Amino acid sequence: MTEDSPEISPLAPEAFPELPAIDGVGLADCEAGVRHRGVTDVLLAKLAEGTTVAGVFTKSKTAAAPIDWCRSILPLGTAGALVVNSGNANAFTGRQGADAVREMAIAAAAACDCTADHVYIAQTGVIGEPIDAGKITRVLPDLAERLGSDWAGAARAIMTTDTYPKGCARTADIGGVEVNIAGIAKGSGMIAPDMATMLGFIFTDAAIPADILEIMLTRSVDKSFNSITVDSDTSTSDTVLAFATGAAGHPTVAELGEAGLAGFRTALDEVCLDLAQQIVRDGEGASKFVAITVAGAEDVIAARRIGLAIANSPLVKTAIAGEDANWGRIVMAVGKSGEAADRDKLAIAIGGIAVAEAGAVVPGYDEAPVAEHMQGREIEIFVDVGVGDGEATVWTCDLTHRYIEINADYRT
Amino acid sequence: MTEDSPEISPLAPEAFPELPAIDGVGLADCEAGVRHRGVTDVLLAKLAEGTTVAGVFTKSKTAAAPIDWCRSILPLGTAGALVVNSGNANAFTGRQGADAVREMAIAAAAACDCTADHVYIAQTGVIGEPIDAGKITRVLPDLAERLGSDWAGAARAIMTTDTYPKGCARTADIGGVEVNIAGIAKGSGMIAPDMATMLGFIFTDAAIPADILEIMLTRSVDKSFNSITVDSDTSTSDTVLAFATGAAGHPTVAELGEAGLAGFRTALDEVCLDLAQQIVRDGEGASKFVAITVAGAEDVIAARRIGLAIANSPLVKTAIAGEDANWGRIVMAVGKSGEAADRDKLAIAIGGIAVAEAGAVVPGYDEAPVAEHMQGREIEIFVDVGVGDGEATVWTCDLTHRYIEINADYRT
Repeated sequence: MTEDSPEISPLAPEAFPELPAIDGVGLADCEAGVRHRGVTDVLLAKLAEGTTVAGVFTKSKTAAAPIDWCRSILPLGTAGALVVNSGNANAFTGRQGADAVREMAIAAAAACDCTADHVYIAQTGVIGEPIDAGKITRVLPDLAERLGSDWAGAARAIMTTDTYPKGCARTADIGGVEVNIAGIAKGSGMIAPDMATMLGFIFTDAAIPADILEIMLTRSVDKSFNSITVDSDTSTSDTVLAFATGAAGHPTVAELGEAGLAGFRTALDEVCLDLAQQIVRDGEGASKFVAITVAGAEDVIAARRIGLAIANSPLVKTAIAGEDANWGRIVMAVGKSGEAADRDKLAIAIGGIAVAEAGAVVPGYDEAPVAEHMQGREIEIFVDVGVGDGEATVWTCDLTHRYIEINADYRT
Repeated sequence: MTEDSPEISPLAPEAFPELPAIDGVGLADCEAGVRHRGVTDVLLAKLAEGTTVAGVFTKSKTAAAPIDWCRSILPLGTAGALVVNSGNANAFTGRQGADAVREMAIAAAAACDCTADHVYIAQTGVIGEPIDAGKITRVLPDLAERLGSDWAGAARAIMTTDTYPKGCARTADIGGVEVNIAGIAKGSGMIAPDMATMLGFIFTDAAIPADILEIMLTRSVDKSFNSITVDSDTSTSDTVLAFATGAAGHPTVAELGEAGLAGFRTALDEVCLDLAQQIVRDGEGASKFVAITVAGAEDVIAARRIGLAIANSPLVKTAIAGEDANWGRIVMAVGKSGEAADRDKLAIAIGGIAVAEAGAVVPGYDEAPVAEHMQGREIEIFVDVGVGDGEATVWTCDLTHRYIEINADYRT
């Protein structure tokens, strides 16, 4: 992948952000030729002894081999290394796939001086092709010799059809000590030609027990990675992992409710949300970034489901691509979500302008300012379904010709 | 709509079939100018006294006004008239919309010599625009004066963005008496520019009590109209109604289990399935007709859900449009359905050719014959998920550039 691909998403941020080195985390990447030549495709992160870990994985019933592996070792709560490859998702590869993961873990453990059950593995790329683990295991010793903090390189090594690398960092204060959080992620679409996977990796030097980290990560992911959608498809390999090295030196956090943890939780939320939104902005063929807020639902979960029903509707997504303020399709999508909604109290605003209230179009509705909003790159939709206090925001992109090109025409 | 539109679906049947007159059913249609000029847009069906009725409606939580109306009168079990208009769905139109439906029912009752609570109403077209009921009520007396059996005209009057009218007929034997079934339907897409609605109307001269008709219709609809999908969106107005005039003269059916009813039930299944498949063949932008059979699921409902997850996946649908035998996307879609599946027993066949077995690609897989199948207009996908005996088939079409054009670009 070249630095400035001509096809870079029009919604991409200007540049990869500055990410600080995280004490206790060493990074290295290289070209291992997993599938293509000329692209970096393996990332190794070595983690200081005692690093705690938390993880959230795809709900797919056909999850890939590395997902099974990570789930099996997660109860140990500590991690020594992370290996990620792009080019092959090692999904639907049977026993051979499970063997390949074990081989990679053993090789990384040897290179990083830990045990295999402390090696986390994530893989992204083509589904259903047997993977040659040797291509990856043979580069690990060299990677372990040249660890550094090249976040942009790390973010680039995990890309598949992403058009730009994705990273985000924040700082927080725990007990008077500054701690750092740095994260990288990859999308995109749902995903592209033969590809699977949304991956997110978050590293911090804070000292947080695994069980508390797990609760915080799950909540942050619900409001971020689990609140985005490009095309409704669920990957076999979606993985978000958080690692806390404890090197910042503050007393280890004892409880989730600690006052001193509030700033960290906000920072973690922000990193997850920023990365998740970067994934949407790199959605396949995306030309518009869409925020959909649903209020008045029975609860937060219902609000998110209604939001995702709107965000996943091909009719809503194509209307947005066509810059059409087609609120009738929003009504339809609310109706199909299956969640409680009061048709006769439904209110809709687009770009902050009231379009419908009390179950009907607003009197004297003037489409002109709404149409102008639809011409922008950032679209805001608000829906109140009139039955309760549940509120949630989800993010998506539009459905364009380019999506079809990427996913149907790529063989030509 | 002209007889041979240049944009007629490439998957359309050769011609509108011959449908017999149904004793006790009188049809008439006209141009009422509901939205556009030069198209027929109102259908009146007058039904003989004592006609029984059954109905299945959209599960949308934002259902349109005529759905509320039909649901409220359905418990009476008998019908005197059916009025259908295209051009305006009367959905999300508040109290005004409910008033308009009542006005239409009263006018049709006067014209057809029945009571308003025996008048069924279905409406399709734009969502959220107040409807002028007067345009429809004023044509009803004239329609009631010139009733006939022009099924093609009836099927055409209910079209919105459909590219061809849809009809189907069968005969059956009940107690030695031949009975007729005739049905018409409209799609299409999910649906088109601002449009909503899948409608199906089935008429028979059999003598069947409403409660038995309701059970038979519900079962037939599950295997047909509820087993198709174009783009996963659910309309505010989906309606299937069945009317039985009893004019054929056989003794009224007494029980669902009657041996003599088996042939009728098969014929009803066939009419529903044929109409439903015609709707898929007219899906917006469809270039391929896809049958997806799922076996080995926990039960029939689980099998149908998995089938619909595959059928609704944008990645699967774009792969089919691209004539790509991308079975990895099928694995992904099985996984996201949420239904039980054994990844390591999963088997997939495309066009009758085994692609994957026991959770991995078949040894020595040769893509050539599968690729050839993908180039045809009729695509067959079979998936065994390896956990039980549940089996179901669903039907869909591919997702093409034309879909995006119809739904995003129609303003230009």
